[in-house]
Amino acid sequence: MYKKQQFTPISQIGEHKLIELLCKKFKPTHPETIIGPGDDAAVLKKNTNKNTLVSTDMLVEGIHFDLMYTPLVHLGYKSIVVNISDICAMNGTALQVLVSLAIPNKYSVEMVDQIYEGVSRACLNYNLDLIGGDVTASATGMVISVSILGECRAKQTVTRDGAKHNDLIVVSGNLGASYLGLQILEREKAAFTEGASEQPELDNYKYILERQLKPEARADVIEGLDSAGVLPSSMIDVSDGLSTDLLHLSNMSGTGFKLFEDKLPISKKTRETAKELNVNPTTCALYGGEDYELLFTVPIDCHEKLSSVNNICIIGHVTKDKGKREMITQEGQKINIENTGWDPFKTEQM
Amino acid sequence: MYKKQQFTPISQIGEHKLIELLCKKFKPTHPETIIGPGDDAAVLKKNTNKNTLVSTDMLVEGIHFDLMYTPLVHLGYKSIVVNISDICAMNGTALQVLVSLAIPNKYSVEMVDQIYEGVSRACLNYNLDLIGGDVTASATGMVISVSILGECRAKQTVTRDGAKHNDLIVVSGNLGASYLGLQILEREKAAFTEGASEQPELDNYKYILERQLKPEARADVIEGLDSAGVLPSSMIDVSDGLSTDLLHLSNMSGTGFKLFEDKLPISKKTRETAKELNVNPTTCALYGGEDYELLFTVPIDCHEKLSSVNNICIIGHVTKDKGKREMITQEGQKINIENTGWDPFKTEQM
Repeated sequence: MYKKQQFTPISQIGEHKLIELLCKKFKPTHPETIIGPGDDAAVLKKNTNKNTLVSTDMLVEGIHFDLMYTPLVHLGYKSIVVNISDICAMNGTALQVLVSLAIPNKYSVEMVDQIYEGVSRACLNYNLDLIGGDVTASATGMVISVSILGECRAKQTVTRDGAKHNDLIVVSGNLGASYLGLQILEREKAAFTEGASEQPELDNYKYILERQLKPEARADVIEGLDSAGVLPSSMIDVSDGLSTDLLHLSNMSGTGFKLFEDKLPISKKTRETAKELNVNPTTCALYGGEDYELLFTVPIDCHEKLSSVNNICIIGHVTKDKGKREMITQEGQKINIENTGWDPFKTEQM
Repeated sequence: MYKKQQFTPISQIGEHKLIELLCKKFKPTHPETIIGPGDDAAVLKKNTNKNTLVSTDMLVEGIHFDLMYTPLVHLGYKSIVVNISDICAMNGTALQVLVSLAIPNKYSVEMVDQIYEGVSRACLNYNLDLIGGDVTASATGMVISVSILGECRAKQTVTRDGAKHNDLIVVSGNLGASYLGLQILEREKAAFTEGASEQPELDNYKYILERQLKPEARADVIEGLDSAGVLPSSMIDVSDGLSTDLLHLSNMSGTGFKLFEDKLPISKKTRETAKELNVNPTTCALYGGEDYELLFTVPIDCHEKLSSVNNICIIGHVTKDKGKREMITQEGQKINIENTGWDPFKTEQM
């Protein structure tokens, strides 16, 4: 039986520091393992021209999703999409997935079927083969673990560490909607728990709810960049929040950055809902998380080519001094961007 | 919110039937996906000469392990080994793993470190690269999900469906020890829970406890077969119990089998403990599970070559009539072998 000698609470160091500590135990030795842990996906040599990409993500009930308001079909769909997003973030194409599910005995075959219906729809939409997995009982909550394989051309694998001074910082789609979708769902749950008699009126929030419950991966943007002949110098997907994910890029590239608040893409619906909930839309965009947009840097001489790529916008540029991670506000003030993104170990559990 | 329309308890159909149902939703479409779900690992085309193997397994607290008596280092080690065993069962070599862990906030950094220490030892022993994973909080119990990649020569990939009439049935190592190890641990746990004052005397059970808590994968047997020039016609690893796993082989190959009770490899320690616990050692060997030995069939003309392979024994042969799955007892009686292996959905939870 395990003896408690030292006890450092995980919440004290958080997810990223913990992973960093654990990774110290491991040094890849196979020549075909090109990149191990630490990027959006691992990179393995497939053949002279191609690399295999591998990534995995775990969704835990009560931490990553709440079955009070998460339709099971959407949950299955989302579990695949968040993994595809990691393959996109390496400039790759997702090809195969393995899905493991731990599910309490109290759930029915029909409910498991709903989850896999969502998985199946994601596989169809993104042209993925389901090649394996595991279905097992859980003594407590539900856990979905997905592993994904993809590939990319060997010379076009994009990692997090290639950003250079003066590169443009680009993000796809828009930011902050998913976070606000979650706030609306939590508000309705609270009302329901308190015994509200009226049915919630959610039609007005359709867009932001969908961004939270059924996000999409930006495979279209990867294709768009390829067609335009733009190869990003670094890339990551926005899962923990623009600030956290841009700090990852900067830390791994050893660079700073300058963002412009007025360039941040925020949808009209997001602004409206932010106003209603009395939160700053920029805060949602910076710290919200779960947008599953692509955040990347491109050399400045690609500026013209970029203009032919749909659904992206330039939000700033890379700077030399890695001590300076700034945003210029709409009022022209400089503020420091700090890491306050979502951490599963630092969050109150649902 | 999810509407309950139909409700078929998962325990009514069990794990294998459930997986069969779910798999109907999926048809691989990529030409490089050679084998999808249903074997020990998925098979992907790597290049002309080699296939990539991929498998995944999830271990859930309270279902697959009990932290009352499972040292965390061993848990980490075992989570890797059970996956390596799946790669071995395809006649492959494991190369890379991804490890995801959901862990309650109440655990410490030091405890997580213990789990990864076990992972690290398994990686060292079996020459594996850890290439990724996920560490996240869990609102309830601990869950470890491991995905593994390996490779094998394209023409030497061994699946479950190749057994032919008259092939020899061979198993590595010995059977039933892991099951009895679990029984001893459960007995000691019960005694502890009831407030036994004496420390348990477990030295005598060292071998069978190790088989349960820290199993090994039979990579040595795969090497031995290769050196001897023996290519099995079908193969599976013994995780659910000899009976269940041999029935998998037979069902997928469309064959029957005849086993001989007096050929079943059962260690002296296993026999002693079975006697002590008043259970039949053959029952342990047939239905016990978690032995992580290799069970395979070989064409009869390989009989001589087999004799140079260490740690294996012939326990019967494949027959034509798939309706007949028999064992000849020590007394010369025929008994039918039925599927009564372990099912996580049909088991009382720890």
